[in-house]
Amino acid sequence: MTATTTRELVGIDERRLLRRLDDLAQRGALPRGGIYRPLYSPAWSSAMDLVTAWMKEAGLLTRRDAVGNVWGRIEGSRGGRVIATGSHIDTVRGGGALDGALGVVAGIEAVSSLWQRFGRSTRILECVAICEEEGSRFDTNFWGARAIADRLEPGEADRVRDADGVTLAEAMRAVELDPTTAASAVRRDLDSFIELHVEQGPVLEDHGPRLGVVTTIAGTAHLEVTVRGQPDHAGAMAMDRRRDAFLGAAAMALAIADAAVRMGHPAVATVGTMAVEPSQVNVVPGLARFTVDTRHPDPARRSELITQIGDASKRIASERGLSLEIRTLRDRPPVTLSPRVTDVLRRAALAAGVEPREMTSGAGHDAQVLTAAANTAMLFVPSIGGRSHCPEEATAAEDVVLGTRVLATALRDLAYQA
Amino acid sequence: MTATTTRELVGIDERRLLRRLDDLAQRGALPRGGIYRPLYSPAWSSAMDLVTAWMKEAGLLTRRDAVGNVWGRIEGSRGGRVIATGSHIDTVRGGGALDGALGVVAGIEAVSSLWQRFGRSTRILECVAICEEEGSRFDTNFWGARAIADRLEPGEADRVRDADGVTLAEAMRAVELDPTTAASAVRRDLDSFIELHVEQGPVLEDHGPRLGVVTTIAGTAHLEVTVRGQPDHAGAMAMDRRRDAFLGAAAMALAIADAAVRMGHPAVATVGTMAVEPSQVNVVPGLARFTVDTRHPDPARRSELITQIGDASKRIASERGLSLEIRTLRDRPPVTLSPRVTDVLRRAALAAGVEPREMTSGAGHDAQVLTAAANTAMLFVPSIGGRSHCPEEATAAEDVVLGTRVLATALRDLAYQA
Repeated sequence: MTATTTRELVGIDERRLLRRLDDLAQRGALPRGGIYRPLYSPAWSSAMDLVTAWMKEAGLLTRRDAVGNVWGRIEGSRGGRVIATGSHIDTVRGGGALDGALGVVAGIEAVSSLWQRFGRSTRILECVAICEEEGSRFDTNFWGARAIADRLEPGEADRVRDADGVTLAEAMRAVELDPTTAASAVRRDLDSFIELHVEQGPVLEDHGPRLGVVTTIAGTAHLEVTVRGQPDHAGAMAMDRRRDAFLGAAAMALAIADAAVRMGHPAVATVGTMAVEPSQVNVVPGLARFTVDTRHPDPARRSELITQIGDASKRIASERGLSLEIRTLRDRPPVTLSPRVTDVLRRAALAAGVEPREMTSGAGHDAQVLTAAANTAMLFVPSIGGRSHCPEEATAAEDVVLGTRVLATALRDLAYQA
Repeated sequence: MTATTTRELVGIDERRLLRRLDDLAQRGALPRGGIYRPLYSPAWSSAMDLVTAWMKEAGLLTRRDAVGNVWGRIEGSRGGRVIATGSHIDTVRGGGALDGALGVVAGIEAVSSLWQRFGRSTRILECVAICEEEGSRFDTNFWGARAIADRLEPGEADRVRDADGVTLAEAMRAVELDPTTAASAVRRDLDSFIELHVEQGPVLEDHGPRLGVVTTIAGTAHLEVTVRGQPDHAGAMAMDRRRDAFLGAAAMALAIADAAVRMGHPAVATVGTMAVEPSQVNVVPGLARFTVDTRHPDPARRSELITQIGDASKRIASERGLSLEIRTLRDRPPVTLSPRVTDVLRRAALAAGVEPREMTSGAGHDAQVLTAAANTAMLFVPSIGGRSHCPEEATAAEDVVLGTRVLATALRDLAYQA
């Protein structure tokens, strides 16, 4: 039998783990709270330098790939395909200390501890700090994982720009990366990938236990809805003669949220942006444009939700004499993770005395992209208050330690087979 | 008896009137339709030059006052207090050809026709192109009428800026006006002021007749409502755990409009602007901020409406676990116009065979400010489709002519008394 039968949880340097999370949170810390580490920025470079130093300190072989993902490696005694772990180093603007960062720091800690305790693995074992996942700077996302999984689009680095008009290619050159070699970041030698992440929702905190394994990552659809009515004088045009585009959009937003509520958990639908024109205090809005983010891990239910959103919007537009245009900005199908690697995670959790909850992830993760390159699994630890993408994002220290020990245990079971 | 008993409608040069309206609409015409003549801009100067030339062509004594209002005058044989007419030359961005412009062009036509047909008046008779009413460029409005009515605020020209940061004082100097002399634009010698204006609403078109006299101008309240909830991950945070600030704001906007609908015409309430934060497709809005414009000509009903708006917003915030802040940006009480001068207008309309509708104006007008300086009245002609502040703003040519002839008749009755 392989090492997967081992019931003992791997030990780690708990104080080092927690201290490093604090240290990383200083890179890109904003004066008024929260963190911002946009791709290829000085804060990002500083964070990458820090995690690279940690990998070197543990004696791992480090390498920065063509898009800036940083890998730390233990050469396995038998070679073959690679066992890997990690997450992303970038953050949303005003984000927290754990989204991405936990998986990076815990991955380094797990691989470093295994190296220090058990020496050379039989399989090749790597940890990775992925350069970008959040769309933190450019009008794209999953840049790092897509480079690994051979999912970059032709000409993407020259086409995509940040808010200042800087292209991704220009930003790469500024940190001494050569955009023409981006394709060489592809990894075709991965066997398994495990990502430890905070849940970013309230399920584990509300219902327990302290660990979750992700079976499916919800498919995200982003829609852009444009409602056109008639701009009129806010003082002179009678209420019953108006075709107010914003009131239509407001009714649609309430109906869209209601559709997700009626479908029940884990269906979600969010109107995150809203713009009106002409946007003057004394003019009835003639146009309203908003986005919808909607997700469900079951492809059939997801389609049903998108249909309900469209139908409700059409009904409201018709009732109010408004015209309607719905454009799909993004449509990512749900992704199923690897049952085999998930089972390794489950057994590692059992070694800690926890029967992990099987969960779907509403949030997108590097793991969903890396399913194209490796047998992929995800481990969740609770988020306090379910909060994420905000300065309040937090997880109890004991849960951070537990998750990291379970991750290390799963990696041992995969990489230290006899 | 005075000339007010005359039953004959004064004749005007109808073709000249309509041609001039077309000519003025070229000044500030936008390439894609609509007009924009912001205060002290090149388009504004060009329009002012045009109307000044028309006044001179009629032989009127012309004068540009300290803020740029242009006056054309017939010296009355008996002197005394002045009879005046006019409206504003500026427009909203993408506005139409009649809001303000009709009162300017018709005022010049009426005074010019009276001078040409009846010679010197007994009372002093003036027409005026008022420099600004719309808030067309600066974060202020009624600049021209307030200068006439001694309602400028100390230091206002140095304090108020346009979107590019240019102060009103700097903009004045650019068109060779001296901001330090603005106070000299005050007129303390006015007796009566009549403003002809398009209705900007659908009442006359829907219910007739072709003329309206304004008894009251509705008081405008502008509120700024800030709703605070909790920003969360749009994929990971369960629907029933959210405190979505935008959904609260959407429910408030619908309730606010409903409050005006339930109170009935002429109550109006409009949410014209809406901003959410962080305004990302995949983040639940933590903050929503919107404006409310609400009006009613009856002070008690107006207060009731503002109370209802506040109460509905508070109830919704409480139901949804949101915090609420309501700030009053502007609070102008309703203004009652002069029954005496309105009666002169009514009799002039009767001379045209029209019993005018007594109306309240939901829109604000120079006339409401000039009540502080003169006995003031307003005459409305129909707006096709009730449309205004848009390129489609229009009035039938025969109604433009009718309104101008009735204006000229009323001015004759006031200024040519035996």
